[in-house]
Amino acid sequence: MTLLPDPAEARAARLACRQGAPRPTAGMAPGFTQCNMISLPKDWAWDFLLYAQRNPKPCPVLDVTDPGSHRTALAPKADLRTDIPLYRIWRDGVLAEETPDATAAWAEHPDLVTFLIGCSFTFETPLQQAGIEVRHIAQGCNVPMFLTDRDCRPAGRLHGKMVVSMRPIPAGRVAEAAMISGRTPAVHGAPVHIGAPEALGIADLSRPDFGDPVQIRPGEVPVFWACGVTPQAALMASKPPFAITHAPGYMFITDVPDTHWQV
Amino acid sequence: MTLLPDPAEARAARLACRQGAPRPTAGMAPGFTQCNMISLPKDWAWDFLLYAQRNPKPCPVLDVTDPGSHRTALAPKADLRTDIPLYRIWRDGVLAEETPDATAAWAEHPDLVTFLIGCSFTFETPLQQAGIEVRHIAQGCNVPMFLTDRDCRPAGRLHGKMVVSMRPIPAGRVAEAAMISGRTPAVHGAPVHIGAPEALGIADLSRPDFGDPVQIRPGEVPVFWACGVTPQAALMASKPPFAITHAPGYMFITDVPDTHWQV
Repeated sequence: MTLLPDPAEARAARLACRQGAPRPTAGMAPGFTQCNMISLPKDWAWDFLLYAQRNPKPCPVLDVTDPGSHRTALAPKADLRTDIPLYRIWRDGVLAEETPDATAAWAEHPDLVTFLIGCSFTFETPLQQAGIEVRHIAQGCNVPMFLTDRDCRPAGRLHGKMVVSMRPIPAGRVAEAAMISGRTPAVHGAPVHIGAPEALGIADLSRPDFGDPVQIRPGEVPVFWACGVTPQAALMASKPPFAITHAPGYMFITDVPDTHWQV
Repeated sequence: MTLLPDPAEARAARLACRQGAPRPTAGMAPGFTQCNMISLPKDWAWDFLLYAQRNPKPCPVLDVTDPGSHRTALAPKADLRTDIPLYRIWRDGVLAEETPDATAAWAEHPDLVTFLIGCSFTFETPLQQAGIEVRHIAQGCNVPMFLTDRDCRPAGRLHGKMVVSMRPIPAGRVAEAAMISGRTPAVHGAPVHIGAPEALGIADLSRPDFGDPVQIRPGEVPVFWACGVTPQAALMASKPPFAITHAPGYMFITDVPDTHWQV
């Protein structure tokens, strides 16, 4: 094994995201931080940054661009308009379009402020290194995500429920999965909920609100982590006039090793 | 011993801060989170929240008020205008006044946005519980703080150097002090620098830029933590027209147990 992840792998993965057919990024460029993205007109930037500060478990902000910029310190040579496999364009809180290239949408608003938010895919590498299978990677599909009944703390014009991602974990490894993910609070950290999906307002684990369902085997417990799709739930509830986001599970791959976020 | 800190102690400490002669708050209401404070006109709030996001070690934001509000979720019955022992009023980046009551200054600007920022006093309780002496508490003085030569990452109109607090720790306990404080990244977390003060641009440990000097005994190493006085260094460097802050070492005592921030 090598001690450090190879930055060329992150660059190659971004190039594949830019040029190839869109597919979820879980398991791509292992060892590198992945991010959720949301771009909003500058007039909404304060409300969103405050929303993130007030809801740090689902919305841990890793970088904020200058207005109109499509560059980030997390991957200096990347282009935020093209390097995510699949984007969503939102108008008045409604998903208007999905596209692999957001350049045209970006050009509609010259003052977009872009927020990059930690993603739980980042701690899937240490989970796997500990021998804990990540089911959606094993099944080659997207992670299942659910809208919960938990209100986020509102900020200005923004409000909405928390979204969670779910991974089934063998009962004997749940505590370890909690501790491993807990070491990286900047990418959602420890689970927000272990077992008892009904207590989160989740009626049916086989019907996720975002992503794909995964198999839950006997002896496994559904473990729920706060999810960076939470801002998209806020878009739907709060209806800002315009936004660009990643599509759930189709993340921005950065140049930052996941070990950077360990406390 | 009792398992949980008594909220009445936090309230009593705030009352003493409001009514008594100003004194540093280190060691007061042990077990409760203490905060740095900075209030800025709304026009500067975005720049500051972004500055904090880009410099999370010195500026971990624990709460942001609505414009004009002197209330915080961290201590719902407290009044941010009076419950800090000593305030500083800043005009054009210059310290204009120190006062135990900021009510009049607050009234000058109806749209102040107030940021409460984690304070390293919060992890002094677990340090002491581990048998590590906190020298400025033992000496009954303020913690020594130093302006370093390290630039913070700028944001909008705000720029400045990082400020650190210093505690001398016996060489055999330094690693433990790093690990204990590292468990609470929201209150500055692990040290940013251990030993070698000259490599931080600190020429003389006996002459702190803020607070009081403390004794360093043979076999002890100076340990430096990122400090919530860093925003005051940004005020001096960036010269916004108006600001209110706490005086270094004279903190806001909240109702939140320090264990709340453990990861």
